[in-house]
Amino acid sequence: MELYEAMSTLRAVRRLRSDLIPDEVLERVLQAAAWAPSGGNVQPFRILAVKSAEKLNIIQKWYREEWDRYIKPQRQQESAENNDTAASANKIIKAGDYLANHLAEVPVLLVFCFNPGRMAITDAELDRPSVVGGGSVYTAVQNVMLACRQEGLGCVLTTLLCYQEQAIKQLLEIPEAWGTCAHIPIGYPVLRGHGPISRRPVAKLVFENSWGQPMGKL
Amino acid sequence: MELYEAMSTLRAVRRLRSDLIPDEVLERVLQAAAWAPSGGNVQPFRILAVKSAEKLNIIQKWYREEWDRYIKPQRQQESAENNDTAASANKIIKAGDYLANHLAEVPVLLVFCFNPGRMAITDAELDRPSVVGGGSVYTAVQNVMLACRQEGLGCVLTTLLCYQEQAIKQLLEIPEAWGTCAHIPIGYPVLRGHGPISRRPVAKLVFENSWGQPMGKL
Repeated sequence: MELYEAMSTLRAVRRLRSDLIPDEVLERVLQAAAWAPSGGNVQPFRILAVKSAEKLNIIQKWYREEWDRYIKPQRQQESAENNDTAASANKIIKAGDYLANHLAEVPVLLVFCFNPGRMAITDAELDRPSVVGGGSVYTAVQNVMLACRQEGLGCVLTTLLCYQEQAIKQLLEIPEAWGTCAHIPIGYPVLRGHGPISRRPVAKLVFENSWGQPMGKL
Repeated sequence: MELYEAMSTLRAVRRLRSDLIPDEVLERVLQAAAWAPSGGNVQPFRILAVKSAEKLNIIQKWYREEWDRYIKPQRQQESAENNDTAASANKIIKAGDYLANHLAEVPVLLVFCFNPGRMAITDAELDRPSVVGGGSVYTAVQNVMLACRQEGLGCVLTTLLCYQEQAIKQLLEIPEAWGTCAHIPIGYPVLRGHGPISRRPVAKLVFENSWGQPMGKL
């Protein structure tokens, strides 16, 4: 698949079938992660491919708790309104509910782990939340998702399970020094899967030389 | 360009020519960022395309200071040794020196900004460095770099300028609520540019069901 076609049709797909993913397909998806750049080429991430039904069942229970807690305010707000925005938000909530109720059925959940001790986190001392460690792992996450797009696999980047990190680490025997930062269920889509996406026009995201100054040709 | 070809040949290119980038090429690179997924589809990032020679000169001064400070221990260590590893490390140091001495000459420096107030940072309260905010911006960074690969443009993800964030924010008039997390010089390569990359075998990066357990077919 052509690069821009993959990027421009990569959706968050939350309704996934339980059908097995052939080994060679999953290998290509994982190889895409290995190709990603990282600070000093250290590759300070590992991927746990969780396939065990028993472990997925436990993880689903945790995910559903976090999802319910996270979505509760939005759920109440949307149900009180009745317009296009609410309808669109309700669609996303329903897809999220589906994932929370079926996470254990996906063929593979990819849990991305990272080791902050192997990263040069240049914004660690700043007076704002640090994100730079993510530069050595979400590049690989994006490669994985683009590879899923190419392979016809649905996927979605979730991070709610970070709220349950200690429990996840114990379940998957992740060593003390490592954290988790992305939990990506993948599988063939129940519905149409990937396709058109809704994003801001690029001109709204880009400035030239100074904040707020539009870029000439955009 | 085919997706896997782009991913598997995306190198950190630090020697960049000053030749201008045609507007339509730069637009495609920026559009790739806009396509990236982000938490809640909020797109909590903005990109400053710095082309002003005056501003690039100031930024180069800061970058060089940080680079010299960062690389000093390695420089001393490598010069004391004389083997293949040291030779390889010296090559990277030399390319980094080139960038530090020529940053002001690149046609465009992309400064990625992000607003943590628009992110759900699920690992903010954990007893380890937070990275999850990066999940809504380094996906776009990776798209930009893959687009550069497709367009024949060299690029490299740098984060050293985070050490000078307050100064950068003042120079580029970035509002208080926003931080910076990637500074990507782009331009046509001086040498061969992209090509073969060196990465760990995927089998060393992936486990199945439990940490340390190899995945069957890898």
